[in-house]
Amino acid sequence: MNVDGVPYRTIWPAADGRAVEIIDQTRLPHAFVTARLETLADAARAIRDMQVRGAPLIGATAAWGLALAMQADASDAALAAAYETLFATRPTAVNLRWALDDVRARLLPLDAGLRADAARARAAAICDEDAAICEAIGEHGLEFLQAAWDVKQARKQDGPVNILTHCNAGWLATVDWGTALAPIYKAHDAGLPVHVWVDETRPRNQGAGLTAWELGRHGVPHHVIVDNAGGHLMRRGLVDLCITGTDRTTANGDVCNKIGTYLKASAARDNFVPFYVALPSPTIDWTLEKGEDIPIEERDPAEVTTVTGRTADGRIETVTVTPEGSPAVNYGFDVTPYWLVTALITERGVCAAGRDGLARLFPERAAGRPDESTG
Amino acid sequence: MNVDGVPYRTIWPAADGRAVEIIDQTRLPHAFVTARLETLADAARAIRDMQVRGAPLIGATAAWGLALAMQADASDAALAAAYETLFATRPTAVNLRWALDDVRARLLPLDAGLRADAARARAAAICDEDAAICEAIGEHGLEFLQAAWDVKQARKQDGPVNILTHCNAGWLATVDWGTALAPIYKAHDAGLPVHVWVDETRPRNQGAGLTAWELGRHGVPHHVIVDNAGGHLMRRGLVDLCITGTDRTTANGDVCNKIGTYLKASAARDNFVPFYVALPSPTIDWTLEKGEDIPIEERDPAEVTTVTGRTADGRIETVTVTPEGSPAVNYGFDVTPYWLVTALITERGVCAAGRDGLARLFPERAAGRPDESTG
Repeated sequence: MNVDGVPYRTIWPAADGRAVEIIDQTRLPHAFVTARLETLADAARAIRDMQVRGAPLIGATAAWGLALAMQADASDAALAAAYETLFATRPTAVNLRWALDDVRARLLPLDAGLRADAARARAAAICDEDAAICEAIGEHGLEFLQAAWDVKQARKQDGPVNILTHCNAGWLATVDWGTALAPIYKAHDAGLPVHVWVDETRPRNQGAGLTAWELGRHGVPHHVIVDNAGGHLMRRGLVDLCITGTDRTTANGDVCNKIGTYLKASAARDNFVPFYVALPSPTIDWTLEKGEDIPIEERDPAEVTTVTGRTADGRIETVTVTPEGSPAVNYGFDVTPYWLVTALITERGVCAAGRDGLARLFPERAAGRPDESTG
Repeated sequence: MNVDGVPYRTIWPAADGRAVEIIDQTRLPHAFVTARLETLADAARAIRDMQVRGAPLIGATAAWGLALAMQADASDAALAAAYETLFATRPTAVNLRWALDDVRARLLPLDAGLRADAARARAAAICDEDAAICEAIGEHGLEFLQAAWDVKQARKQDGPVNILTHCNAGWLATVDWGTALAPIYKAHDAGLPVHVWVDETRPRNQGAGLTAWELGRHGVPHHVIVDNAGGHLMRRGLVDLCITGTDRTTANGDVCNKIGTYLKASAARDNFVPFYVALPSPTIDWTLEKGEDIPIEERDPAEVTTVTGRTADGRIETVTVTPEGSPAVNYGFDVTPYWLVTALITERGVCAAGRDGLARLFPERAAGRPDESTG
């Protein structure tokens, strides 16, 4: 998407063909800085230090990391070592393992002399495939935004389509387009009037920091709100629909996503506001039956007790907001049950949230599963 | 309540009888500092600069402000000027006007020579009355905590009664005891095991700052959580009940309170978690029929875009969390419809949230109103 009029992806090959470049997301939203990754170590550090984040982008960066490793040493031993180094950076990231397995399987049968070029080609293809998945989600989700616009027109309601989103499921979390934000970019680029309510998304503020930044740089109208505000906006009729991403969705359609997603889904149901989830199919966990089966990560309480931002004179500072001696608890995610989700938006099209809907879109994955429907 | 073992109120007469002392709440939770108010100007500044906040405490401070004014000059002209000065500090605060009207009406018939003593006596009585209202709320609310404990015991469930609260409705917002926290203090002091989930309460962080501080200083077990976390806790069975305060409750039982309260009430209903509101009767607005009639204050967007806390080296710093060019919107309050509220806890006892329940507890106020029941 655009950064002040210039098209960007989150990761791209350097012009000299010997490196890959990224947007250093640790500097956002306070500074827009790109970084050049020349070695395996550079790629591993970029993932570990969260210069890149978001499951699809982590996978793409890992694929490029193998390509950079093959440039220096394309032996079997070097390939194995590079795999281990990259896998250790974020061991719970599903896309990381998938990308590493994919690239390694293609390189192992090749002569060492062919591996660097093959790895670069495959890394580039993985990036293109991710962008294509996200763009397809954008096109399918656009239908809901168009429908919301048509309803507002028919009712002679003023103003744009108001969309509430939580966390960052935008192009910064992927290679391009994003997931939840892809339909919004499609609508905006097509001239459909849209306006986004951006949940701050404490504790890490990916909404206030990343979503607001990317919407602003692309020119999409938006306002940042505290996570507490969405219910009031819904009750006052100021939200036409919600769209969020998902970190993992189980076979029955339960949606695990950033903590706080469930509260918005509950209020959306209470106010007859549609609640959509943008769901790239690699995010579906067919091995889990339901959301209660997902372990919820407990993260560092310091994320709750502190906030990082920039001071009036431009320094980046971390401040503590709690009293000394008051402990905090930090759950990273919550589960929104499928019955609160109006529809899932995948790269293959949309479906009702639930076992049947997912099985119809992905029959090859759902095959062999118990023939029972709970949704 | 206690501050590290020493009993405090939020406002008290100085030992020399010539001044009143307060806790400077602008310094909390990072420093515990008291301030001495010797003049009308001191009292007005304390209210305006929010060294004291919370409707009951603002009223009490205004009453003391008149007493301090009468010490210096007890003429009719001085009384009128002091009234205007204090009323201008926070013109929308209902308790402020009530306290000023009450004290002025008692002073006007008196000779000037008697006014200073009379004003001091009345200010002290207003403080005692507020503490008595809050303590009564504590005693009535304690019944729900005791019931929750009894249920856990009968089900052989481990652990304390887990209570979720939002914002600060504790003794810092009143003269003593607080409203939502009064039942918790009563339970804790009676030896009932309680544990409080403290919502951070963005944007001004009254939960992370004030509620956590006062619970910690009194010794009540608690954890601070981000505002996003409560839904997940409820779904996992980690919340036995919610209690919040209210800024204004309408005749039908709709509860206006700090932004975000409604999201917790919606999730509580979704998870069969009782949701109680502590309601001192001066907070009931009998002139409004329902929550939709309440104008919702839009506050400075800078409260959303920035966070204030202390740095590692102990300085108080304000940092910006949003990108330049991203606007924010800041609604101060939301309305929780009465049907999401399990019960209202008043100083006269508890009642079902709704017109009938309130009318039975306060027949003298509800009299003359249309004989229709919507709740």
